[in-house]
Parts: sequence; structure tokens; C-alpha cells
Amino acid sequence: MPKKYSYQQLFSFTKNIFLEIGCSNQDAETAATSLLSADLRGVDSHGVARLSGYVRLWEVKRVNAKPAIKIIHETPSTATIDGDAGLGLVIAPHAMKVAIEKAKQAGTGWVSVKNSNHFGIAGSHAMMALENDMIGIAMTNASALVAPTFSVERMLGTNPIAVAIPSGDEPAFVADFATTTAANGKLEILQRKNAAMPMGWAQTNEGEPSTDPHALKEGGALLPLGGDREHGSHKGYALGSVVDIFSAVLSGANYGPWVPPFPAYVAMPENMPGEGIGHFFGAMRIDAFRPAAEFKIHMDKWIRRFRSAKTIKGEKRVFIPGDIEREMEEVRMKEGIPLLQPVVDDLKKLGEKFAVEYPTALEKSE
Amino acid sequence: MPKKYSYQQLFSFTKNIFLEIGCSNQDAETAATSLLSADLRGVDSHGVARLSGYVRLWEVKRVNAKPAIKIIHETPSTATIDGDAGLGLVIAPHAMKVAIEKAKQAGTGWVSVKNSNHFGIAGSHAMMALENDMIGIAMTNASALVAPTFSVERMLGTNPIAVAIPSGDEPAFVADFATTTAANGKLEILQRKNAAMPMGWAQTNEGEPSTDPHALKEGGALLPLGGDREHGSHKGYALGSVVDIFSAVLSGANYGPWVPPFPAYVAMPENMPGEGIGHFFGAMRIDAFRPAAEFKIHMDKWIRRFRSAKTIKGEKRVFIPGDIEREMEEVRMKEGIPLLQPVVDDLKKLGEKFAVEYPTALEKSE
Repeated sequence: MPKKYSYQQLFSFTKNIFLEIGCSNQDAETAATSLLSADLRGVDSHGVARLSGYVRLWEVKRVNAKPAIKIIHETPSTATIDGDAGLGLVIAPHAMKVAIEKAKQAGTGWVSVKNSNHFGIAGSHAMMALENDMIGIAMTNASALVAPTFSVERMLGTNPIAVAIPSGDEPAFVADFATTTAANGKLEILQRKNAAMPMGWAQTNEGEPSTDPHALKEGGALLPLGGDREHGSHKGYALGSVVDIFSAVLSGANYGPWVPPFPAYVAMPENMPGEGIGHFFGAMRIDAFRPAAEFKIHMDKWIRRFRSAKTIKGEKRVFIPGDIEREMEEVRMKEGIPLLQPVVDDLKKLGEKFAVEYPTALEKSE
Repeated sequence: MPKKYSYQQLFSFTKNIFLEIGCSNQDAETAATSLLSADLRGVDSHGVARLSGYVRLWEVKRVNAKPAIKIIHETPSTATIDGDAGLGLVIAPHAMKVAIEKAKQAGTGWVSVKNSNHFGIAGSHAMMALENDMIGIAMTNASALVAPTFSVERMLGTNPIAVAIPSGDEPAFVADFATTTAANGKLEILQRKNAAMPMGWAQTNEGEPSTDPHALKEGGALLPLGGDREHGSHKGYALGSVVDIFSAVLSGANYGPWVPPFPAYVAMPENMPGEGIGHFFGAMRIDAFRPAAEFKIHMDKWIRRFRSAKTIKGEKRVFIPGDIEREMEEVRMKEGIPLLQPVVDDLKKLGEKFAVEYPTALEKSE
């Protein structure tokens, strides 16, 4: 069993590391909050496991710890933001706040961002809208791992979309998903086990269907949501493309195969057409469409009706998007966040490098 | 081979039928344009094949041929529209125009619609934004045929999403897809042939995977994009849910299992929480984010790069969303629209009922 660590100590450690690379106190807190929301919500691949990756990007000067994030173009309901090569973990909440402020005035706010880096999980940014009685939307492009339908080339990232919708007495609806059949993290788990991968997740470098979880590492590609043409992969490809275009062609970031990779040791693409990676955010005030109280009554009714839908025999629940992550967050906030030994070792090395006290496990015996 | 009919004569016939049920001249033209865009673009299930279905909805007084479509709530960038039970084919272009006008002033425009009916294909409405140098978005809910992940109940419609994005010298990017693995029309084709259906399209009334194309008619359900949990059906379910909520919970239309069915002979759901079916439209001015000329240079580059992506051996092309439909439109505008004999018979009956001259085939011998 992996050892568990309290949210508080992981937060403090993460914040201290971001301070060490030169972030302001506020930015370090924002970045730590963004990053750890992934661990809390059970998206382990996007949390502290990536902290040393962010630091390496700073070391090779691809991350600017003191960015001058600025609006470079705007209308009453839109803005384009230059992230000045800062941490996406900081730029994204900044941009989402701009969207929310625009929505307060104009009903909705839409922000496209260039010159950014990986922003953690989309869901945490979209959820910022909830406390303002707004619907929140967040998406980002990412370096190319996904082949369009009928292609062997990696052209798109896993390009996630998150949509957070407020409710009344029920917990909010929070969808947050990559536009691929399966996330890379799931392949990595199967690689470690040397277990077969389900068909429809990835293809070989020749574009053949594969059940080998190493197919991606050997020059293959992840598949768009749908898997193959017969099962609608052209739809997943279209969705991932929309995310790419809204995030990068609208803002002036890099798109398609030119999106810079997250690992600092991977060479940058040649002839890049933009700056950094791109994100797109939206905020829609509920009462820009109907009174919020009225909406919430119906949203609660929607949620309850779907939650009570008859299950397939053997299945216990019909989930509302966000249920699993919210329940995970409740458990992990209380019982701690489990970290695999390689992640613990990685954090320990980071702590030693920056002379920051690293987290200790809650239950050594577990 | 099915007989072919010219666009002009099908348009004139369709317009005349809409005039006969009491539409104004302008509404009849708008409705005929919306409906026939489906035939032109190759979405045969949503074109004139449905004309008699719309007429039957009017006969049972579910369609109001003279609707007073009105804005019931608005902000600078949003509006909520009551469609007054009119034809969705008329209400949708009206609402899209409102979104475009809002975008001219505020940068973006977003319109949620209640009290409407089936609006044809989403793509034709989204594409209205293109000539204004705007990105267009259109979506709609529909009567429930789709089971959420782990459920046997039909809770969502095929809830399509369309996104149209302007380009420069290249043709526009136009994605238009149901949020299910396969559309109902594809099942109907297999039913006629009594051919096996691919796994992942539909399940039985017990929620078991099925290859029987009659599974849906026998109380089963279509599956969300992804097919099953292992292949990301929870993502298709989340997407279809977002369409439902934006279209109906925001506007005050019916949602989930309460969306009224298209066939006039099917009983209406009980205890409906809203009015009619719902749609959602968006328009985003390109130059609300960056100069349009600059955007178009990059959008052309995006399209060319994706179009030139290396294909899988045996495949001829990597398509850009919209390629297939646009090429179909060019062919059908020139060579005519093929109609299956049951559709021809149906139109003939309609023509006789309303004393409207019905279309004659271009090439009798074909």
C-alpha cells in the first residue's frame, strides 16, 4: 500500500518549492492549490507527481517564475492573455478570474491564453466559476500524442475540456475529461504491470490497432475519443481540434504538432508558429439566462433524476459527472493523499535540492 | 439506385408545404433552407425525409406555424428566447442571428432557447456565423434514446454539437456530430439489411452489449460516444449532459427523459418540467481575440498541416471536419439529391394532401 501524506504538508512543501524557484508568495500559493487539486480529486498523474517536471522546465528557462501576465486584446465579453511563459498553474486561475469579471459585466466572459505552460487539471479552474453562480469552462491544448482518424501522425494533445455547472442542494455538476479514449496515465499503469491494453486506446506507429501498452512509447499514438471511425473517433478528433483552435489559434499559442512538450528533456518542435501552449476559459452567469434560484431548482431535479436512473444489473450507481472526484476529495482531505514510492523519492530529492523540508508519511506502517 | 431530385425543386416543394401549414413566406423559406441543408450535406435522416414528420407535429398542434418568437431575458452577451412552439427550423436561425448581433456589440453572443421543436442539423445554424468572421456554435437536446454509463434507462437524446470556424483560403472547419457512438440513422440502415451492428453502438433493455440493430426498438438504448466505460462512455455521457443542460436547464425547456419525442404519434412524457425542446447557440467574433486576418493565416496553416498528416496505409486522406459534407454539397447541388423510394412516396402523399406539385426525378432511368 502506498504511504499517505496530509494535504496540508504536501501543500506547504509544494508552495515552498515554488517559492524557491522565485514565485511570489501569492503565485506559489495559487500554483500549489492548482497542482494539489489534482491529487485531492484522484487525478494522480497531474498532481505533485509532476512537481519536479515543472521545476525542470524552470531550470531550462521555459518557465518564468515572475511572469507579467497581461491582457493584450479585449472586448466587453472577451480577452486574450499573454501568460509571459509563467506557470500554467498560475496563469489559468488568473485568466479564469478575468473571465468571471467579464461575465459580471457582460453576462459571459471568454478568455484565450497564449504563452503558457501546463495548467494542471482543467476541472479546478472551471470550478472557480461555481461560487459566483456561473457556469465555468476550461480547456487546454498539450503536446501531440493523438492521431487524427485515418492518420499515423501525432497531431493533437489529450486536450481536456472541463465544464462546471452550479446546482442548489445537490453537489455541482463537474465534467472534466481528455478528448481521447484513455489518458496516458492509464497506459503507464498497464506498462508497469506489463498487462494488455484494451483495443481502441492506442495504435502502433503503423496505425494498427494494438493491445500493447508500450505502443505509444514505440512511436504509436493515442486515439481520439471513439477509438476508431466505426465508433466515432472522428468526433473525438473534432473535439480535440476545437480545443486546440480555441486555445491556440485564437490566442497566438502553438497548436497541433507544434505544442511544446512537458518533459524539459524533450526537444522543442521546429518552426513553432506561436508562443507556449494555449488555454481557453469561459464563465457564464446563470442569471444572464434565467433567475439563478429557478435554474438551481431544475438543476437539482436534473441531477436527482439522472442519479436515480435504473442501473445495469451488477452496477451500483449511475454517476453524475464530478461525483467520483468529489468523493475522492472528501476522503483524501480527511485520510491523506497516497503517493507511490517513486513520487515520494522524487519529492525527497527536490526537497534536498532546495533545502525544503519534505513531507513525512501519516502512517508509516501502511 | 435511388432517383435524384434537384435542390431547386425540393426547395420549392418544401417551402410550399410550409406555406400550406400557415408559415409566413419568410419563415417558409428559412425552414426549407434549414431542412434541405441536411440533404445537401448528406445527412439524409434529417432532411426532406422528415418533412411529413414536421407536418404531423403541426396537425397535432405541437407546432405553431405563426410563432411570436421573443427574447424573454438578456444581458449584453446573452439572451434567452421563447420559441412559442414554432418550427425549430425557423427558431434556430432566428436565435443564431440574435447571438451574432450580440457578438457584434459585446464580442460574443450566447442564446439559450426554450419552447422549440426539432431544428434540423446543428451545422447549418453554426455556419451562419462564418460570413461574419465569427465562430459559430449550435447544439440541441432531443428525446431520450441514450443510456448514461452503467444505466439501462434512456435519459438523453443524441444531443449534437456543431462548431464552425472561419478560415482564409481554406474551406471553413465545420464539426457537427451527435454525442453518441453512432446516430440512429445508421442503425436504421442495418435494420433494413438485417445486418449485424458493431459492438458499442447500442445495448439491450437489460444493458447488455448487443450487435442486433433492433436492440434499440426493443427497449434498448443508444450508447454515449465512447461506447462503454473502458472506452470513455462517461465522457460522451458528460458531453450529452452539457448539451442538455445548456439547451434546456438554462432556458426553461424540457430536459433528460422529459424531452418531447419527434414522432407525433408517440405519447408525451408525463409531468414535463419545461416547455418544448431546447437549443443553445454561440457566436464569437474572431477579432474579439486577435485580428481576423492574423487568425485566418494560422487557421489555414492548421488546416493544411492536419490535411497533410501521414495517413494509415490504405487510407487516402486525413479529413478536416466538414470536408465530407462540403464535398457532398458540391456534388448534390450539381447532380441532384438522391431520395429513397419510401421518401419519394411520402413526399408524393404530402403533395397530394396539400395540392402542392411534388418533385419529379431528374433521371428516371437511374
